[in-house]
Amino acid sequence: MANFGFSHLTVVAPYEPHWREAKSAVGASDLLQNAQRTESLAEAVADCTLVVGTGTLEHRKPEQTVVALPDLAPRINMELVRGGRIALVFGPEKRGLTRDDLALCHLLVEIPTDPRQPSMNLGQAVAVCLYELATRTLLSSAETIESTASSGANSTAPASPGDSACARDLDLVAEVVEATMEAANYSPAAMQKANRHDLDLLLRRLELTQPDARRILGLFRRILWRLKR
Amino acid sequence: MANFGFSHLTVVAPYEPHWREAKSAVGASDLLQNAQRTESLAEAVADCTLVVGTGTLEHRKPEQTVVALPDLAPRINMELVRGGRIALVFGPEKRGLTRDDLALCHLLVEIPTDPRQPSMNLGQAVAVCLYELATRTLLSSAETIESTASSGANSTAPASPGDSACARDLDLVAEVVEATMEAANYSPAAMQKANRHDLDLLLRRLELTQPDARRILGLFRRILWRLKR
Repeated sequence: MANFGFSHLTVVAPYEPHWREAKSAVGASDLLQNAQRTESLAEAVADCTLVVGTGTLEHRKPEQTVVALPDLAPRINMELVRGGRIALVFGPEKRGLTRDDLALCHLLVEIPTDPRQPSMNLGQAVAVCLYELATRTLLSSAETIESTASSGANSTAPASPGDSACARDLDLVAEVVEATMEAANYSPAAMQKANRHDLDLLLRRLELTQPDARRILGLFRRILWRLKR
Repeated sequence: MANFGFSHLTVVAPYEPHWREAKSAVGASDLLQNAQRTESLAEAVADCTLVVGTGTLEHRKPEQTVVALPDLAPRINMELVRGGRIALVFGPEKRGLTRDDLALCHLLVEIPTDPRQPSMNLGQAVAVCLYELATRTLLSSAETIESTASSGANSTAPASPGDSACARDLDLVAEVVEATMEAANYSPAAMQKANRHDLDLLLRRLELTQPDARRILGLFRRILWRLKR
């Protein structure tokens, strides 16, 4: 991260003894000292408007759009121009991101690797992704490049009021919609987790703006209030 | 290397105990088993027509052309189209390539890193360079991608008679020219090493074809024979 000028690292639910002893490379101690720490991925990406998941997708059929890393720049640039905040999310080395982690991502990026040896070392995957972002997106011309990694890395454009809804907005919508489905007896309680998963995916696929999110939220609050009367 | 489909690894003068115990990542054991081993970098790149050195150049003014990694593809493609063999050379993690190693390179490639943290981990630098070659050069469309790394990695186009002189041709020229300078009392013996260094650099900057190299060799052999008569 320091090699490519990224500085915002968030670590999600780290294994305590390892985290306490984590040491940075020479010259990158600020990055590790300033790292944020959260208990969930949802918290880590709460203020982000574009959440990009990474990983090898060989064994699963992804539910989101998958973009090859060399083709990622235009999507990143669009978000930067809008004034959005971008998170790049990496899973633990051995098992990668879970299906529920991926449901919090707007899109997935895949490093094009040889099919005979698709799975990369985590540190090398991070280096390759950040090299691509630092050299082929508008980040490369920005005066300051910032970033967070977790099991997530997150890069930020100069702060400005974003047009896209951030993850926190989407979570709020999802909660109210979920409560409404429950109040309306929409589906059996056993289906609640699966429905929420589909809802998370849907809300991200829609690429809502903040006004969209506010409007949907208002509508569902109204419905919920009526249902509970 | 296996992640990006490269398979020709040459290790130069490895530290014996480490080399004997070297283990590959899961799935890449062939790569390590088939690795070549040489005593010198000159041997490792002998059959290559384009030798590309890597490293951080912060503390030295390089004597060759330096190309930023994102701009390397056109030069690589030109060489591949000519049917050349390309070597990508990495130095040991701590000190990088020496000045004499660099004199065997036609050009140097630099990964654009943050000036506050320019020096990269070796494995990450290799991953970033091979990602770039695999995704943005003609190698990416070739059916087979081959490569060697050393303290050197080396990628090969489909074998065909190359137009460019290979490193072995250039070394032969350098030896005969050096012998000629000596026979002609061109400069004091103390200068011999420095002269050879400059000669190595010059021969690579000229980008000689094989016929060029043969012609120069013939001329200097003739001069040498006359001088020694």
